[in-house]
Amino acid sequence: MALFTKEDALDYHRLGRPGKLEVVPTKAMDTQRDLSMAYSPGVAEAVLEVADDALQAFELTAKSNLVAVLTNGTAILGLGNRGPLAAKPVMEGKAVLFKKFADIDAFDIEVNCTDPEKIIEVAAAISPTFGAINLEDIKAPECFVIEERLKAMLDIPVFHDDQHGTAIISAAALLNACELTNRDFANLRVVVNGAGAAAVATANLYINMGIQRENILMLDSRGVLYKGRSGMNEYKEQFAVDTDARTLEDAMVGADLFLGVSVADVLTQDMVKSMADNPIIFALANPDPEITPAAAFAARDDVIMATGRSDYPNQVNNVLGFPFLFRGALDTYATGINEEMKIAAVKALASLAHEPVPDDMLDAYNLDSLEFSREYLIPKPLDARVLLHVAPAVAQAAMDSGVARRTIDIDEYREELEGRHNHSMIARVIDDEPIHYAHTGV
Amino acid sequence: MALFTKEDALDYHRLGRPGKLEVVPTKAMDTQRDLSMAYSPGVAEAVLEVADDALQAFELTAKSNLVAVLTNGTAILGLGNRGPLAAKPVMEGKAVLFKKFADIDAFDIEVNCTDPEKIIEVAAAISPTFGAINLEDIKAPECFVIEERLKAMLDIPVFHDDQHGTAIISAAALLNACELTNRDFANLRVVVNGAGAAAVATANLYINMGIQRENILMLDSRGVLYKGRSGMNEYKEQFAVDTDARTLEDAMVGADLFLGVSVADVLTQDMVKSMADNPIIFALANPDPEITPAAAFAARDDVIMATGRSDYPNQVNNVLGFPFLFRGALDTYATGINEEMKIAAVKALASLAHEPVPDDMLDAYNLDSLEFSREYLIPKPLDARVLLHVAPAVAQAAMDSGVARRTIDIDEYREELEGRHNHSMIARVIDDEPIHYAHTGV
Repeated sequence: MALFTKEDALDYHRLGRPGKLEVVPTKAMDTQRDLSMAYSPGVAEAVLEVADDALQAFELTAKSNLVAVLTNGTAILGLGNRGPLAAKPVMEGKAVLFKKFADIDAFDIEVNCTDPEKIIEVAAAISPTFGAINLEDIKAPECFVIEERLKAMLDIPVFHDDQHGTAIISAAALLNACELTNRDFANLRVVVNGAGAAAVATANLYINMGIQRENILMLDSRGVLYKGRSGMNEYKEQFAVDTDARTLEDAMVGADLFLGVSVADVLTQDMVKSMADNPIIFALANPDPEITPAAAFAARDDVIMATGRSDYPNQVNNVLGFPFLFRGALDTYATGINEEMKIAAVKALASLAHEPVPDDMLDAYNLDSLEFSREYLIPKPLDARVLLHVAPAVAQAAMDSGVARRTIDIDEYREELEGRHNHSMIARVIDDEPIHYAHTGV
Repeated sequence: MALFTKEDALDYHRLGRPGKLEVVPTKAMDTQRDLSMAYSPGVAEAVLEVADDALQAFELTAKSNLVAVLTNGTAILGLGNRGPLAAKPVMEGKAVLFKKFADIDAFDIEVNCTDPEKIIEVAAAISPTFGAINLEDIKAPECFVIEERLKAMLDIPVFHDDQHGTAIISAAALLNACELTNRDFANLRVVVNGAGAAAVATANLYINMGIQRENILMLDSRGVLYKGRSGMNEYKEQFAVDTDARTLEDAMVGADLFLGVSVADVLTQDMVKSMADNPIIFALANPDPEITPAAAFAARDDVIMATGRSDYPNQVNNVLGFPFLFRGALDTYATGINEEMKIAAVKALASLAHEPVPDDMLDAYNLDSLEFSREYLIPKPLDARVLLHVAPAVAQAAMDSGVARRTIDIDEYREELEGRHNHSMIARVIDDEPIHYAHTGV
């Protein structure tokens, strides 16, 4: 994993133009005439059109391709609350991921306040600027109310990727793991270790997709959330179930799925041994998972495993989700990203893993072959086909569920997406060595 | 002036990528390693540096080159209050002017509120994002308190270009008009027609540069602001003087300077005739000035004239100011744009008009010659040399006046500026025909 040093990372940010993004004109600005249309007096024509019909803003300005990546810096990566200014490098990074993966323009917005009411007010106030808002690195439980309230207030999508990214990508992997092991998704017994933003949203999505609420045991740092336990916020409260389990060890007995969104090394080999046949272990703590693949496979050889790391198979990486959810939402002028759109993304991701992998993808990833299997439950993060599969599915769901303000032809749309610069993505060189579970297991 | 039709202007905005700007990465994002530095885990190194030393944000993020172009849409060009969404085309236009003229990145931010307290709160909340804030198209008198309060609150420059742009450019023209007519700037008798944002700021700058407050007569739509008149807000009140003049006609008698920031055709030939020798007429109403050059020169042939239009000599165009004020302020990590910096810009602009005009500039403007004169009081808006003259003067003033947080070597800085892409600007073709006052006058 030591692909670079601290100095490499700082030089990457510092050298040349400081930071990672710039804003450039998309229209000619070469002559007096160009400038007279870009600004006064010609721009007045665009002003009057938008004043007359607000949807014209999607046609005459960058709004329809513009996302706010908005934070207050209270939960920066794994670094905790470092404030808005220190969050800026991360938000710029997210912004350029939007561009790289889905040709979406993004402004990073760092908000200097921790009061949820104020953040809501600020985000709502600046919302005319954007076609959608991506909330980022805002700590739980404030992130829940901020997202809920903004979704209800605004006529553009508001999406907290820290919540829904993990939910969507892991759900796709889970659908395929169930298929490979002939399990009924609806009957899964699930342990969610962690009760933060990603944990709560993931459990909610799984429930919306059919898993029984009473079959989910969620744990925070104090143990299982059970009915009658004290000191739970309202978001934890909804996952409190009737159970005698109190510890992770208790909870794991007979579980089909361990979903870890917690900290390194909390899952023991004994716990893995106590799980059901073909246990599914999504150990997503970063950079070090709740159990290493080596340890899990040493405990038993029927494990199905995913992590958050790029050097193991089945990387649950948010870039498989947010760029394409926003792409599909923006392109239909959607008023929101709803459950239908998220589930459409899940199914499109799961489906793509069944498709033959093109040779250029194999070359890029330095692999001889890759096909649907326990080691390939979900597409690779740098697979350019994801845009073409997921964004149209999301756009279709937006139209079907009534949140689209523009109707598009999905076949034409897919062709249009092929024209976006993202298409060259798979040509990139992958410069870390792939690791197979066969190398790490029993 | 009919360089384009309404449809041309709308097509310019609509065709291709909607709107006028996009956000692009400035660093390589081609390999897994690149992505690992741009985002997790490498970006954490930048987060920790900034958390430890806030000024590192200027080195490790785009903050040091990033301006907010922020509006609530209450005074859009000459179109009045059309709200934040309809202002977006204008703000995008301003953003790309920043890029074109000074290689500054700008996010347009449209704020959905009219209450000054709320705008202040919102702008302050998102201020960590930016190296400076340009307020735009916010109506008077709210714009004054918004700018004043934000300047006092924030550690980055806050500058309302609608106020100070006209002030700075017209002051440069005025300095040179005084030089050409052997006038003492401090003794000028001035009529300011209009009492909005630009009028108030211009009068204030002139006073800071030495003009006597009692020698300025300001008029709003109800006539002269005189001591004892009712219904004046606090900003007008400060310009109320002891005078018997009540009308524009009264005020103009013997005036050295007419500064019009009002509406078309309010200045009559009789009023022009009543002015002092070599009367200076800055008729800046757009698109149609307070008096046409043809009418003014028909009244008397010793007029010195400037307008806001590109098809007459001496265009008072804000692009001569804001890009370079912000450039100099950003490059010294200045905490504000103060009077010293504005006056440095005025003097640099006035000085540049004395310099020989390079041949490529003449070619670009389709002119045979251009030298310091009544027809060339200030540089042309598309003169690439303005960056190299004004930004260093502003940066030096920032350092001298104690608002700079970075000390730079001005000679090295000027060389660095030559490397910015702006330098190619003068190669552009000017596609409207130049008009000389000789064509329009007596």
